[in-house]
Amino acid sequence: MDIEDFDKRALKKQEWPNAGFQASSLSKAVGIIRKMKEEKATTFLAFTSNLVATGLRPLIAEVVKQKKVDAVITAGGSIDHDIIRTSKSYRLYTGRDDVELHKRGINRLGNIEIGNECYEFLEEFAKKLFARFKGRAVSPSELIAEAGSMINDDNSFVMWAYKNSIPVFCPGIIDSALGLQAYFNKQRDKAFGIDVVKDMAQLGSIVLNAKKTGAVVLGGGISKHYTIASNILRGGLDYAVYVTTASDWDGSLSGAKAEEAVSWGKIGEKAQKATVYGDATIIFPLLYPHFF
Amino acid sequence: MDIEDFDKRALKKQEWPNAGFQASSLSKAVGIIRKMKEEKATTFLAFTSNLVATGLRPLIAEVVKQKKVDAVITAGGSIDHDIIRTSKSYRLYTGRDDVELHKRGINRLGNIEIGNECYEFLEEFAKKLFARFKGRAVSPSELIAEAGSMINDDNSFVMWAYKNSIPVFCPGIIDSALGLQAYFNKQRDKAFGIDVVKDMAQLGSIVLNAKKTGAVVLGGGISKHYTIASNILRGGLDYAVYVTTASDWDGSLSGAKAEEAVSWGKIGEKAQKATVYGDATIIFPLLYPHFF
Amino acid sequence: MDIEDFDKRALKKQEWPNAGFQASSLSKAVGIIRKMKEEKATTFLAFTSNLVATGLRPLIAEVVKQKKVDAVITAGGSIDHDIIRTSKSYRLYTGRDDVELHKRGINRLGNIEIGNECYEFLEEFAKKLFARFKGRAVSPSELIAEAGSMINDDNSFVMWAYKNSIPVFCPGIIDSALGLQAYFNKQRDKAFGIDVVKDMAQLGSIVLNAKKTGAVVLGGGISKHYTIASNILRGGLDYAVYVTTASDWDGSLSGAKAEEAVSWGKIGEKAQKATVYGDATIIFPLLYPHFF
Amino acid sequence: MDIEDFDKRALKKQEWPNAGFQASSLSKAVGIIRKMKEEKATTFLAFTSNLVATGLRPLIAEVVKQKKVDAVITAGGSIDHDIIRTSKSYRLYTGRDDVELHKRGINRLGNIEIGNECYEFLEEFAKKLFARFKGRAVSPSELIAEAGSMINDDNSFVMWAYKNSIPVFCPGIIDSALGLQAYFNKQRDKAFGIDVVKDMAQLGSIVLNAKKTGAVVLGGGISKHYTIASNILRGGLDYAVYVTTASDWDGSLSGAKAEEAVSWGKIGEKAQKATVYGDATIIFPLLYPHFF
Repeated sequence: MDIEDFDKRALKKQEWPNAGFQASSLSKAVGIIRKMKEEKATTFLAFTSNLVATGLRPLIAEVVKQKKVDAVITAGGSIDHDIIRTSKSYRLYTGRDDVELHKRGINRLGNIEIGNECYEFLEEFAKKLFARFKGRAVSPSELIAEAGSMINDDNSFVMWAYKNSIPVFCPGIIDSALGLQAYFNKQRDKAFGIDVVKDMAQLGSIVLNAKKTGAVVLGGGISKHYTIASNILRGGLDYAVYVTTASDWDGSLSGAKAEEAVSWGKIGEKAQKATVYGDATIIFPLLYPHFF
Repeated sequence: MDIEDFDKRALKKQEWPNAGFQASSLSKAVGIIRKMKEEKATTFLAFTSNLVATGLRPLIAEVVKQKKVDAVITAGGSIDHDIIRTSKSYRLYTGRDDVELHKRGINRLGNIEIGNECYEFLEEFAKKLFARFKGRAVSPSELIAEAGSMINDDNSFVMWAYKNSIPVFCPGIIDSALGLQAYFNKQRDKAFGIDVVKDMAQLGSIVLNAKKTGAVVLGGGISKHYTIASNILRGGLDYAVYVTTASDWDGSLSGAKAEEAVSWGKIGEKAQKATVYGDATIIFPLLYPHFF
Repeated sequence: MDIEDFDKRALKKQEWPNAGFQASSLSKAVGIIRKMKEEKATTFLAFTSNLVATGLRPLIAEVVKQKKVDAVITAGGSIDHDIIRTSKSYRLYTGRDDVELHKRGINRLGNIEIGNECYEFLEEFAKKLFARFKGRAVSPSELIAEAGSMINDDNSFVMWAYKNSIPVFCPGIIDSALGLQAYFNKQRDKAFGIDVVKDMAQLGSIVLNAKKTGAVVLGGGISKHYTIASNILRGGLDYAVYVTTASDWDGSLSGAKAEEAVSWGKIGEKAQKATVYGDATIIFPLLYPHFF
Repeated sequence: MDIEDFDKRALKKQEWPNAGFQASSLSKAVGIIRKMKEEKATTFLAFTSNLVATGLRPLIAEVVKQKKVDAVITAGGSIDHDIIRTSKSYRLYTGRDDVELHKRGINRLGNIEIGNECYEFLEEFAKKLFARFKGRAVSPSELIAEAGSMINDDNSFVMWAYKNSIPVFCPGIIDSALGLQAYFNKQRDKAFGIDVVKDMAQLGSIVLNAKKTGAVVLGGGISKHYTIASNILRGGLDYAVYVTTASDWDGSLSGAKAEEAVSWGKIGEKAQKATVYGDATIIFPLLYPHFF
């Protein structure tokens, strides 16, 4: 295929042709997402927590609302941010020193500022949430679904997942502000717990019963690994799109390209797969329209 | 301070002077680790799973054996690799295509190859391990300590942690091969589970009772976050060394510099902190002697 | 400013709001380019050679054609690729091993393949070009302008720079295929040479006579440094947009953020500046419409 | 080969075994440098300018002094820093804001500070240097050799290159503080110039007459490309070690792995080659002893 040139009115035509380097990777990823949806593959959307602190939150909510994904896999902080932002606002970083931010009760997440009042809101929410599970151990997905039932916000993926019975898997949920509140709750209610093995049956069943599976994975860490590793049960994903900023030379899971997952049977030998390098706040909005 | 030159016999003198760029960061990290040990700070060692697949494994075991760390925080795969390597060998990547590797039953982790027989060994080990917890929910650290009691390998940090009563926290344990076996075990034993809230009391108590705390964090993800986030309970770490290959411009936790954690109270306002950029397989052996 | 959410019809509205992380950086860069053009700042466009091998080539040509830039600063390979692509096509990488590619006479540039016939074409072009400068030393910009006069291709920035009398500065021109041909030419014509000091007077005069200056810098290396360093002569750029994939922790010029240049007087103390992290093949098409 | 474990006294034994990830790459690089020297391959040392501002300067000088390299290829700023540091000191960054640094006359290079007096010293040096070339065009290597003849500093690679008749090639020399002075000199002496074609004959002759060639390339940009591209003339390097922090997914020359150069004939099909990821201020001291 020849290197095609961008149309000179590039953005107007919303074309991301085969232009080389990451433009080509992006273009390939778009094709895979389209195919994934056309083929009605069971679709996993995985993302790191920080993205729910950004402008991507309503885009994530929309794909869940429109039932364009069948399961969400994410890290604990995603649930924190989604709940908080039903009520509180985050702000752009204003350049202050981190010591000064701390003195002012402002927490910095990259170039985003999150005030302490946000976590006070979460604390109140968590108390009400945990009260619904007195004396028993829940799975992460049960807990998150229950949280969804308490939310009224069109931009909340946790709410839409609940309304649409789309499971949100969160293997590392204890590593979050909600997790910290769970610890405080257990001091009051010894029998309370979060049993992370419990979700495996549902996740396993989704993977095993799917005719085809596909995943769009934004970022690395536990969300990425849990998504692809669960697909070992069926011989690997049929479609996989990774969006990452990490490198593969350090042997990290976060930086591992889609090819590596083939050796593990996490992605199928004949799968369509693409790795797009870039920040998800720029890349995901370019992929997003193609879910529909 | 003037830029000091490397001695021309550089490595022989094992000097990492204030030479600029990451040599300076490394030098600063060495000083912090020395101070952390001199001050007898409660020391956390956090690392990602992939590192236990490398030559770092016995170095990690040694710092645990010599009680130079008070708690280990890591991801699920670390336990997998540590157990497997008590019996099986990993090999250097030979350059084969990932599809061919898959056909041959070889899994690639960066430039390391892990044969399927490794995971068969783990499966047998896991069966014996889970049998010890019939009909009840365990915490990740209980499970890992029990695994340690079953190991006889001087290079195993899981064993040394058990022998020395050093807790190994693993909030994301379900996202591992051991976690997959836990799922199979639950199919046989419904009452079995892994309650991730359970470990918070012990972790919280370590953090709250410490006079000073320090952390050496290799890589990012859940191990890094759980380590620093737990230190919020006491107003932040007093000493922190990050070793990373990730960037901070994407707002990722993995790439966040030590400064960002100050705004959150995860690292103290007056803490000594350093971020060293580089692959831990090169950087950790340079830091390692300074634990002793 | 609150974190604004992406509109759910994101791309359709072509909005890149203040969404955090690099979406915010991109949004800031767009604002700076608009301001740069509104204020009629003397505009420098700098880019690395590899980008001229991609789909960006006609976009670069168009901003030069429409006189939206006042000077181009680039590396030697850019001239090679621009000339070659007036006649030859590049292809997308098909995944072959590099040894096999070499045996087949195909050169790989990331995920782009360039056949040896491309360089044979360049050789013929170069012979004709150098013949026009018998017995004397030229400056890089003279040489490139002359090349532009020999081209008839609407997608060639070298041609449009010539037609519009926009200088193309290329301090490292000798490090290119054209440079290699210059060496062969000097064997035939001893008095021929390329005097890199010669261009400094014109570049200095552009910088010194400008009321305001701005630069859009794609990638790092010599193109980036020559652009910002020349602006020391007037106390620094008033507007600067960097697009990069490089890190700053290694003290590299390529990874240095816009802030660092302020200390040198390469960018003014009060300048508007942004650093956008990402591959220029994705980022530049998003910035491009804002030149007009 | 099995993954070998680091000896627990790692650094004391100075062993960098086959430990996986970049430890393995480093180990491979060490082997290649040893082989390169054993085989008496014509050795190129390439590096970026910023490294001469660090503690690496005397190590670079030493390999030149001990005639362990046959040619140096570098960027313009290297010559600036080497000359300046014969008389002035650089300091570690103290954390001040870049605007404040500018007001105080301090230039920041990553975490290194360079006072304006450094460049005043260079200006005086340059005047004396250019006065030796009245009325004629010089090549970069002639200019640098002449500079070397004016230096008396055991830690200066420019001096040792002169004393040992080792050429220092610098294709982008005009992009430097020395280059700026060359411009001022040409205003006084119109016939003065720097002819970058002139050095190609000597470089070509070194490459063409070598039995074997090897290169150790620290960082990217023009130094890297000029080094490998010149070796096309003989069918490619026999030994190549890259030390880099750049990624290959953006199609950049700086991030291109050694494999890519094979397709171009810049590195031979059967060459021994390694790419080590990391900051040269840490990696080069680990490679350095193996030159001897």
